[in-house]
Amino acid sequence: MRMVEIIEHKRDKKVLTDEEIKFFISNYVKGEIPDYQASSLLMAILLNGMNDHETFILTECMLHSGDVMDLSKINGVKVDKHSTGGVGDKTSLVLGPLVASCGAKLAKMSGRGLGHTGGTLDKMESIPGMKINIREEDFINQVNKIGMAIVGQTGHLVPADKKLYALRDVTGTVDSIPLIASSIMSKKLASGSDAILLDVKVGDGAFMKTMQDAEKLANTMVSIGKYFKKDVKAILTDMDEPLGNAVGNTLEVIEAINTLKGNGPKDLTELCLKAGSIMLMQAKIVDSLTEGEELLKTKIKSGEAFNKFVEFVQAQHGDISYVLDTEKFQKAKYVYNFTSKEEGYLKRIKAFEIGEFAMNLGAGREKIEDKIDYSAGILLNKKIGDYVKKGDILCTIYTNKDNLNEFVNKLYSAYEFSNEKISDRKIIYKIIS
Amino acid sequence: MRMVEIIEHKRDKKVLTDEEIKFFISNYVKGEIPDYQASSLLMAILLNGMNDHETFILTECMLHSGDVMDLSKINGVKVDKHSTGGVGDKTSLVLGPLVASCGAKLAKMSGRGLGHTGGTLDKMESIPGMKINIREEDFINQVNKIGMAIVGQTGHLVPADKKLYALRDVTGTVDSIPLIASSIMSKKLASGSDAILLDVKVGDGAFMKTMQDAEKLANTMVSIGKYFKKDVKAILTDMDEPLGNAVGNTLEVIEAINTLKGNGPKDLTELCLKAGSIMLMQAKIVDSLTEGEELLKTKIKSGEAFNKFVEFVQAQHGDISYVLDTEKFQKAKYVYNFTSKEEGYLKRIKAFEIGEFAMNLGAGREKIEDKIDYSAGILLNKKIGDYVKKGDILCTIYTNKDNLNEFVNKLYSAYEFSNEKISDRKIIYKIIS
Repeated sequence: MRMVEIIEHKRDKKVLTDEEIKFFISNYVKGEIPDYQASSLLMAILLNGMNDHETFILTECMLHSGDVMDLSKINGVKVDKHSTGGVGDKTSLVLGPLVASCGAKLAKMSGRGLGHTGGTLDKMESIPGMKINIREEDFINQVNKIGMAIVGQTGHLVPADKKLYALRDVTGTVDSIPLIASSIMSKKLASGSDAILLDVKVGDGAFMKTMQDAEKLANTMVSIGKYFKKDVKAILTDMDEPLGNAVGNTLEVIEAINTLKGNGPKDLTELCLKAGSIMLMQAKIVDSLTEGEELLKTKIKSGEAFNKFVEFVQAQHGDISYVLDTEKFQKAKYVYNFTSKEEGYLKRIKAFEIGEFAMNLGAGREKIEDKIDYSAGILLNKKIGDYVKKGDILCTIYTNKDNLNEFVNKLYSAYEFSNEKISDRKIIYKIIS
Repeated sequence: MRMVEIIEHKRDKKVLTDEEIKFFISNYVKGEIPDYQASSLLMAILLNGMNDHETFILTECMLHSGDVMDLSKINGVKVDKHSTGGVGDKTSLVLGPLVASCGAKLAKMSGRGLGHTGGTLDKMESIPGMKINIREEDFINQVNKIGMAIVGQTGHLVPADKKLYALRDVTGTVDSIPLIASSIMSKKLASGSDAILLDVKVGDGAFMKTMQDAEKLANTMVSIGKYFKKDVKAILTDMDEPLGNAVGNTLEVIEAINTLKGNGPKDLTELCLKAGSIMLMQAKIVDSLTEGEELLKTKIKSGEAFNKFVEFVQAQHGDISYVLDTEKFQKAKYVYNFTSKEEGYLKRIKAFEIGEFAMNLGAGREKIEDKIDYSAGILLNKKIGDYVKKGDILCTIYTNKDNLNEFVNKLYSAYEFSNEKISDRKIIYKIIS
């Protein structure tokens, strides 16, 4: 078998055989296929596609390119969740404690932020002392003891994805549904949970800009789950405007805490209740979504959900005094109220631009090696549908950078207004199972 | 400007700007763009295409990536020809002396064979002593003196093509009309002739398998010629069966000599007369194709065409005693008559399979570093349209390899028969100017 023939087959719109896909992945991981052949094949896959079976085999080969976690020592159904990434997405920090307080087991590996999107690990690290690198044994013990853990990738999981993703990032081959689906699913399957809820973001701030693409990605990932006989469900959720009000690491941790206490923004709260109730069904704790939502609400009301968050922070060596009194978090040097020049109903808050702006404030990374300023970020004061008068504060900007004035005007382009009332928006568009 | 954005533009079917194409070629040649980004872009170009303007600019950037030959010291119109490659294509060895004997100036750079196709330089080197590496000054003097020279690439011409072609060869990105056209035309334009005749082969043994593709390639190359204000014409010629009867280096040189003496195969003779008369018109030596053909025929009849070949061999240090007595050429150890098992009109002789078979006999290279056995090859005894009886010799096989029996049966699959008479075939399908 020759790599150039595999490339030619996909170039000529042929279906790759299982052997061809295996040959590619195993030899690429071994370093026996050069990057220039891999990138040519990736572009051919991006442009000519892969059918479901090819995608399943690709996922299988990637999954078995490294270690697969054994979570059998954790009692009960292990549920995991994954978001395809967006702006202001602190869902894991709310959902984890919420479902764990109901008895579900969440053994989650998470990632860092890049570009306009944030990452759960970075948000966690904004709590002083919080550790994300934990030995596998301690990780398992923690989930058994308190019901949850969120850590960085442990062990040698899916090296094929590590190598392929780095290549895709610099060769224009990221935006391919089979490649995205196999990348996400190989990692999730290697993490060893029994059930997975996928939060597929759709809109301006998401990787999937259209409902059609998001639905295709979700369907592909749910099919991969079926192929591997895992309980995989997906929700399509809005990422046209940022999720919640806070964008930036410390700001988002505080918002997550407020949401766990029952004082969160409407969209984030609704997403966490709906997604949480699906996870509780997957964990066999409740029999219906309504039952799940009721149970989650009681855990918020009783304070058990917030207490679970405190336990989680403590278990991972975080300083809980910050969680108990969020006023302790270090504040950004500059706080700037960004006010409206227009009047009308807020029609759009472009999530991508908000994400990029927050990154420029110091809240995110342009390159992997960049350092994050945890205190930097944006607090939205108005969301889509709100009526705004001239001079009203649209958002508050937090930064330690001196040159704020230079680029603050750019933020105006993220906002659009309308004279007409905006119809109510849904946070969850669809559930796919 | 970032290379990944250029890749993304072509991936998304956008037209690349002049600046983007320049950025790619100049930085790739400098080694500042890695192969894995170049191959990803090449695959995107192959699958999404390039419009005429993009192809012109790509050709221009490649052309100026190295030296451009200055042939101004050669008196008169310099005509060049290029074949897209095929099986048994010894046309240059006939056409060169033919047009030079009429007063045209042919200053040609040629290539080597690879895979199923032969190369003019290899054929020339089968004449003992023949030199293909000649100093630029001597090359120009030779053309001024005898009217022709065929040499390997001198100087530092089109380094971009050298680097890109090596990459395309191993990344499945050869078969793209804009990439093929810019590769051929950048080299031909860098060679400095005033007029160029392109022989675009079409059929089983050619790179272009269909008339449609061949015509597209020819039109693209003629348009590139117009963009550069050069007189470029193209002929579409048959490569479904091998050209002439001989396939293999020494065998083809002998056939070229016979053709120059007026005893060549019908198809090769016709192609050389037709192509030669176009070149004579391009060289402003004749006013019509008929006049050209008549002039060429007189040069064959008078012996001037053959004498020009002798002069050419002598000028490039070849031993003319072989040319004057072709019996002197070393013979292959084994000669095998391959006979028909069937009866009927010969319907197909698959040129690709004949070319591959000849390569396996030793006449060609599988890899660039392989050595050629000049005496190896095939002499076709029957061509398409001939009536064949059982036991008739289809072709004679020449080789120094001992294990002939092992693979000779494969040759049967190159032949197809029919009960019905085959209609007359054209060697030239179309002239494009």
